[in-house]
Amino acid sequence: MAITITAFENSPDGGRGLARDMRVRWALEEVGLPYEVRLVSLKQMKEPSHLALHPFGQIPTYEEGDLALFETGAIVFHIAQHHKGLLPEDENARARAITWMFSALNTVEPPIVEREQSRYLVGDRPWYGELLPILEDRVRVRLDQLANRLGASEWLDGTFSAADLIMVLVLRRLEGAGILEEYPSLSAYVARGEARPAYKRAFASQLAVANHDRGTKDAKRQ
Amino acid sequence: MAITITAFENSPDGGRGLARDMRVRWALEEVGLPYEVRLVSLKQMKEPSHLALHPFGQIPTYEEGDLALFETGAIVFHIAQHHKGLLPEDENARARAITWMFSALNTVEPPIVEREQSRYLVGDRPWYGELLPILEDRVRVRLDQLANRLGASEWLDGTFSAADLIMVLVLRRLEGAGILEEYPSLSAYVARGEARPAYKRAFASQLAVANHDRGTKDAKRQ
Repeated sequence: MAITITAFENSPDGGRGLARDMRVRWALEEVGLPYEVRLVSLKQMKEPSHLALHPFGQIPTYEEGDLALFETGAIVFHIAQHHKGLLPEDENARARAITWMFSALNTVEPPIVEREQSRYLVGDRPWYGELLPILEDRVRVRLDQLANRLGASEWLDGTFSAADLIMVLVLRRLEGAGILEEYPSLSAYVARGEARPAYKRAFASQLAVANHDRGTKDAKRQ
Repeated sequence: MAITITAFENSPDGGRGLARDMRVRWALEEVGLPYEVRLVSLKQMKEPSHLALHPFGQIPTYEEGDLALFETGAIVFHIAQHHKGLLPEDENARARAITWMFSALNTVEPPIVEREQSRYLVGDRPWYGELLPILEDRVRVRLDQLANRLGASEWLDGTFSAADLIMVLVLRRLEGAGILEEYPSLSAYVARGEARPAYKRAFASQLAVANHDRGTKDAKRQ
């Protein structure tokens, strides 16, 4: 059944692969599923037709026949459940991998997004310089704990899984913050994710959208 | 197989049912599974034996034979997957319910927790009065969207599911903030959750811990 996902027409990150469609692209590449991408503008994301697919007006969405999903955790899980390669077969190992998926999204990601959003929300206030280090320390609490658990392991729990896929991209959202660099084992973990062929294919696909967009703008300017 | 969960020895909410063990208790009550509770102190939560169960030093954890899980989303999902009553049988409806589970935890909860935590983090700063309304407006963005999608429906997608269980408790974390009251349909939704017999049993169990704890302290004082 044909799969269609949505992604930003003009991604705010300019093709750095930090937008959430990257999670779904990577998962689809890992299991070898073809997919189509429908690009949506920020304006379209707030219109009724998109809100019918995604009540919170975000990307990505996932359509497959008469099934429509949102939330990257759920989409990646859906893909992992129906195709081999993203979740262990052993029942207990599978439950633990699912635990790490939720953990990446509900425990590790929130302080990272909170720090990132603070610049847009209150970056112009005179007290932003006081707030930012406090938010950064909250990120460090989680990274300390994550690094302690990961230790010298290659992946979070045994072989590579959907949990690593999500955790690697959650950690990538710290790019440019200068925090992840304090954790060599986590940086190496992210690099292991980025080295996977499926990651590279997914990254190239989202970059092609950004480059095409840039080309169109250049053409318009000429 | 016997199930053991962990909960706060002295819950910071004093038995209001806002701690995360409530999610697991409620799920277990919905499917009619007996369980044991091991109470842990804030100090014990940071010790190696607890960190082995929960790398982020929180409660609840879930033990069942040789399976050990953390993260309420994953624990509730595990219970729902192995027992009838918390996820629809129809495959597409099930995928949509799982989507709402992730949505409650990754889209709706983060700004609610962020607002709540801000008081502990920066409540004593002179600019806290400027920050708080900004964080509250971020909560409202999500509640607006959630209320729009819920409309006049009883539950998020068809019959009551694990997604409603989590969403109701996520929304309850706004108690005392005076924000949820702006959304009569969401308040009614939360009340529908609280009216379920399984919710009431779970609530009574966690309250009994707080009352016992209070009794012990009173006895010590005498």
